[in-house]
Amino acid sequence: MSGRLTGIGVGPGDPELITLKGLKRLQQADVVAYPAGLNGRPGVAERIVADWLQPHQERLSLQFPYVLEPDQLDRAWTVAAETVLPHLRAGRDVAFVSEGDIGFYSTYAYLAAKLRDAAPDLTVEAIPGVCSPLAAAARLGQPLTRQNQRLAVLPALYAPEELMAALAWADVVVLMKVASVLPRIRPILADHGLLERSWLVERVGWPEERLLGSLATAPLEGLSYFTMLLVEVHPPGSQETAAL
Amino acid sequence: MSGRLTGIGVGPGDPELITLKGLKRLQQADVVAYPAGLNGRPGVAERIVADWLQPHQERLSLQFPYVLEPDQLDRAWTVAAETVLPHLRAGRDVAFVSEGDIGFYSTYAYLAAKLRDAAPDLTVEAIPGVCSPLAAAARLGQPLTRQNQRLAVLPALYAPEELMAALAWADVVVLMKVASVLPRIRPILADHGLLERSWLVERVGWPEERLLGSLATAPLEGLSYFTMLLVEVHPPGSQETAAL
Repeated sequence: MSGRLTGIGVGPGDPELITLKGLKRLQQADVVAYPAGLNGRPGVAERIVADWLQPHQERLSLQFPYVLEPDQLDRAWTVAAETVLPHLRAGRDVAFVSEGDIGFYSTYAYLAAKLRDAAPDLTVEAIPGVCSPLAAAARLGQPLTRQNQRLAVLPALYAPEELMAALAWADVVVLMKVASVLPRIRPILADHGLLERSWLVERVGWPEERLLGSLATAPLEGLSYFTMLLVEVHPPGSQETAAL
Repeated sequence: MSGRLTGIGVGPGDPELITLKGLKRLQQADVVAYPAGLNGRPGVAERIVADWLQPHQERLSLQFPYVLEPDQLDRAWTVAAETVLPHLRAGRDVAFVSEGDIGFYSTYAYLAAKLRDAAPDLTVEAIPGVCSPLAAAARLGQPLTRQNQRLAVLPALYAPEELMAALAWADVVVLMKVASVLPRIRPILADHGLLERSWLVERVGWPEERLLGSLATAPLEGLSYFTMLLVEVHPPGSQETAAL
């Protein structure tokens, strides 16, 4: 096995938010793989790196179904690994790109695990990237976290109790992919007096990006799947600071 | 006020983990500011960008004391803002660099707030960067978070109860700057059966970086202030997925 696998986080949307290291490795790769988009459209990571790719680079679009069913996911990862493996065996360096960071809710971990199982001597490396909550805070012109603030990130919300538990525990709460549950969680945030401190950001870093303001006035409908909510539950310095 | 202030997150240590956008703006700046290091040594962000700076760029080393006392901090930010302000008033673009991301536990937020107060018409922009937990996971060759895992980040730990609350709430827990409390929290992680799933990383991205393995075997003493612990409390898929 002489080809190398590199997972690269290419940032949340703006092509210039890729790291120098990520770009260098991306452009050195013989093969560039990415998750396929929906309905034959280009995928998110594919769109981000489109202008960086070289004409001679082979492109592999890998199918990852948008499901949670473990067996179905496992089969998809196996097929993806079987698509990538011949390239690595032939000595070609493969870059797998993921929007945001490579280890922050990315499918890359499963692909890398499958490939490691199939080829234990495979050289694997990961290059981190800017994840979307960091980019959203920067675009809002405010910090995500300061001083001793505890941060909670919820990738998806299945029950209102989860949000309440996060609000009870954390000082800053990030709700990823929040669009579908927004009408149901707004009352909870209102009860906590947090509407003015809950900021909605859609498609951060994309040309279509929208900073929708606080939940006191932001729309609750017609939002993209890639909509995030940042909530500052407590300002810094409001927690106990008794020594451990 | 014709000069522009840009806060730039330059990544956790490796100079090539700066983003293209960050590097471009850094090199366009007339003045580059950063927090001063301890005892006259170069600061962390200053070391990261050293090779990117141009000979003609003016450098401003700003003093931020390592204290938590609000009045003392406020005075330091006021002095720092007064140091930067004349450059902006003279029409010079100023870049303030911070290790990791610019909005993730960075002092930049306070400096920007002071400058906005002093000059409400100031143009301010922030460019995000890779924060250290993402880089640590990448170096460990594992994801930070997958699927529906809830993430908790604790910047500092003041009481064991805080760790227990995080372990009760989250699926993945990141403890930043953990060195001083490690001997006291190891028993808690042992009680939870998590020693083998707690990974210690020192100075991620630096030449001095050490991947110290799991807490089952890692040393507890002699560690840098920049030591982080990543704990996987629950694997993905182990939570309730009842619909909201």
